[in-house]
Amino acid sequence: MTEISMGRKVVTLINIFTVAPENQDRLLELLGQATDGVMRKLPGFISANLHRSVDGTRVVNYAQWENREAFEAIFTNPQAVEHMAAIRNLAIGDRHLYEVVSVHGRPQNPPLPPTRRRDGK
Amino acid sequence: MTEISMGRKVVTLINIFTVAPENQDRLLELLGQATDGVMRKLPGFISANLHRSVDGTRVVNYAQWENREAFEAIFTNPQAVEHMAAIRNLAIGDRHLYEVVSVHGRPQNPPLPPTRRRDGK
Repeated sequence: MTEISMGRKVVTLINIFTVAPENQDRLLELLGQATDGVMRKLPGFISANLHRSVDGTRVVNYAQWENREAFEAIFTNPQAVEHMAAIRNLAIGDRHLYEVVSVHGRPQNPPLPPTRRRDGK
Repeated sequence: MTEISMGRKVVTLINIFTVAPENQDRLLELLGQATDGVMRKLPGFISANLHRSVDGTRVVNYAQWENREAFEAIFTNPQAVEHMAAIRNLAIGDRHLYEVVSVHGRPQNPPLPPTRRRDGK
């Protein structure tokens, strides 16, 4: 399970791939292999979360690293670079690093009315 | 705190806004107001998570709804529509609905070696 929260010291990488619907499954497969085979074993990796768009045209990797340097080290790792080249043959990602600005949940439940005393007074 | 996990019955909306860096703060402000003022009070809302790209050129809303119908109802809510029109004056979002395909964490810690008995035997 992955957590998104404010104030946590992580760097978030969001990579949005635009893909031909007939290649969406294959792209997800390659990203899964790259993540399990290489990325998740690298120092500073926290999580990767792969998403498929319901309309077939996008794949999103929402990933967390401990810091920017740890993330950037993937570009000097020969195994990682090889995986990324194979992925680039299928789809180009729009990749940026992000900070979490705010997390909005549902409104709190309204406070319960004061409990009536058991003796009815 | 927001959780990303597999097998959870949520619909994920990822909206990627391309924005002029001088408008990034204002866009985040408008999105925060729309979320707190309207969206989070609507039935089926689970979370919204606003992100700013470090390079200033993107804003991402990673949001979760209980189902597609709950999300689509925002387009018939006059208050929500008004907020979205103001946002569209600043930036156009690339908005799609997603499913979580896989969540990858760090490798488990290797099992600890057997503890040596205190008496040394």
